[in-house]
Amino acid sequence: MRKQMITISVIGGSRISPKVERLAQLVGQMIAQLGCVFVCGGLGGAMEAAAKGAKTAGGMTIGILPGKDKKEANSYIDIALPTSIGYARNTIVACSADIIVALPGSFGTNSEICYGLVYGRPVIDLGNWGHEGMIPARNVVDAQEKIKKLIKKLQKA
Amino acid sequence: MRKQMITISVIGGSRISPKVERLAQLVGQMIAQLGCVFVCGGLGGAMEAAAKGAKTAGGMTIGILPGKDKKEANSYIDIALPTSIGYARNTIVACSADIIVALPGSFGTNSEICYGLVYGRPVIDLGNWGHEGMIPARNVVDAQEKIKKLIKKLQKA
Amino acid sequence: MRKQMITISVIGGSRISPKVERLAQLVGQMIAQLGCVFVCGGLGGAMEAAAKGAKTAGGMTIGILPGKDKKEANSYIDIALPTSIGYARNTIVACSADIIVALPGSFGTNSEICYGLVYGRPVIDLGNWGHEGMIPARNVVDAQEKIKKLIKKLQKA
Amino acid sequence: MRKQMITISVIGGSRISPKVERLAQLVGQMIAQLGCVFVCGGLGGAMEAAAKGAKTAGGMTIGILPGKDKKEANSYIDIALPTSIGYARNTIVACSADIIVALPGSFGTNSEICYGLVYGRPVIDLGNWGHEGMIPARNVVDAQEKIKKLIKKLQKA
Repeated sequence: MRKQMITISVIGGSRISPKVERLAQLVGQMIAQLGCVFVCGGLGGAMEAAAKGAKTAGGMTIGILPGKDKKEANSYIDIALPTSIGYARNTIVACSADIIVALPGSFGTNSEICYGLVYGRPVIDLGNWGHEGMIPARNVVDAQEKIKKLIKKLQKA
Repeated sequence: MRKQMITISVIGGSRISPKVERLAQLVGQMIAQLGCVFVCGGLGGAMEAAAKGAKTAGGMTIGILPGKDKKEANSYIDIALPTSIGYARNTIVACSADIIVALPGSFGTNSEICYGLVYGRPVIDLGNWGHEGMIPARNVVDAQEKIKKLIKKLQKA
Repeated sequence: MRKQMITISVIGGSRISPKVERLAQLVGQMIAQLGCVFVCGGLGGAMEAAAKGAKTAGGMTIGILPGKDKKEANSYIDIALPTSIGYARNTIVACSADIIVALPGSFGTNSEICYGLVYGRPVIDLGNWGHEGMIPARNVVDAQEKIKKLIKKLQKA
Repeated sequence: MRKQMITISVIGGSRISPKVERLAQLVGQMIAQLGCVFVCGGLGGAMEAAAKGAKTAGGMTIGILPGKDKKEANSYIDIALPTSIGYARNTIVACSADIIVALPGSFGTNSEICYGLVYGRPVIDLGNWGHEGMIPARNVVDAQEKIKKLIKKLQKA
């Protein structure tokens, strides 16, 4: 039996619409309710909204930061892990996840999706990315169902 | 006046069709003829075909390798730079270029395009990627024209 | 007031003597008792012994792994974060810590000490390293006193 | 027969004495005269003095930069390779070398020595570092003799 906690990385733009903000918050909440560790890039936008959702639902939140100073983390991060490797930390946000949830975003988010696929992580698509290999989800409830199945598989492995 | 040499990274799939192989070789040749340093990820497929093109046209070729052993480089690499950071070396293939030329490829290539855009590098699109921010090119001749203009700008900067 | 949890990275050799193993375990235990998050490179030797100490004292343990597979983590790691960047992950073990505790080890441990000093992290010396800039500690009790003072400073910052 | 060029990384402090500056310049010169590619971290101090030596002796110089802008390179670098990964680029300066020459320096230099040893690179000690596993050299002439032997071995491999 797996004793390690399951990590779910939420990736998405640092500048987002109110609609995506609500989506991100719901995704964070859902991750906390599933008992998983929430991981993100630690900064603003979708990362902050999702961390807020996870935190307010009682979850544990990790932020893998680009810089060397923990102060750059948003205020919902419990465990800030500065890397000092800049945007290359995206590769680690992707690799360190058991499951990735992709929200709308820009090139940075896209780089994380690609790395998730390169590293063989399941990537739930909540941002209409449509990359081959991603797992499309219609909404947060649909994403949750798919994540539950992935968690079951991980727990058996 | 800029004294540093101009680096052009060619990115593309490690498994490619004969058609893309020919395209890659022409792109490598063109880079050498422009007097630029050819950079790539150092392995097979588009990287090897483009390096072959650059090498046979008398150019200098650099391979930024994922592993720690220079022997993993394809046989057209003059200067192999092993990094030991795995696929995360894609971020460096992108960042170390003055100009990036994107050929058809998969997630790895896409991650390099995204990093190129994140780092503000001009990315010539010879693979129908169509990402916002890329510079579309119809063919190698068209790419060459666009690269010549970028080089002029770089030389003045 | 700081809300983030304090992270303490324990670094040390992957092949260690029984004496260092006991030392590592005590250090891990002490970190858990101080209410800090335990961080390490996630593998064997000092990392495993310290993680065991932290875990048995009820602490939370994070392993920043070199590879891409969570299975390479030792069995006392709660949250495994695979990085896929090989030994370069040492730079992140160092950077992500508020405080570093250095046990006896080899080149890998030494690289982490150097990175800790480069990034300006306080590095407690429990391995007779003697690098300028480290904070020497005679034993675990002495290390604990010094860590308590560092924690107070961090909580005010 | 090996066709790749041999890369020699020179590592040393960014703030150095006039004596170390002269030493660095001689080392750079020697590397160029041996027909090897000179590699360094691309910035000032020992990196700049050694690059100057290599350049004035007609060698080719590569600078693996911490930032994303080629302008941060010293003026003796032919091929600037920005990495955007900050000091973690030290791991790549070490890994990408066939042979490393260590001059006097501080923590950054020490991290590169450690990584050189971790990755199994021969590390010539011209800075009284005295780490186990390094190859001590009394002066530049002695270093040159040792490098010539290493080159012969590399050319046969």
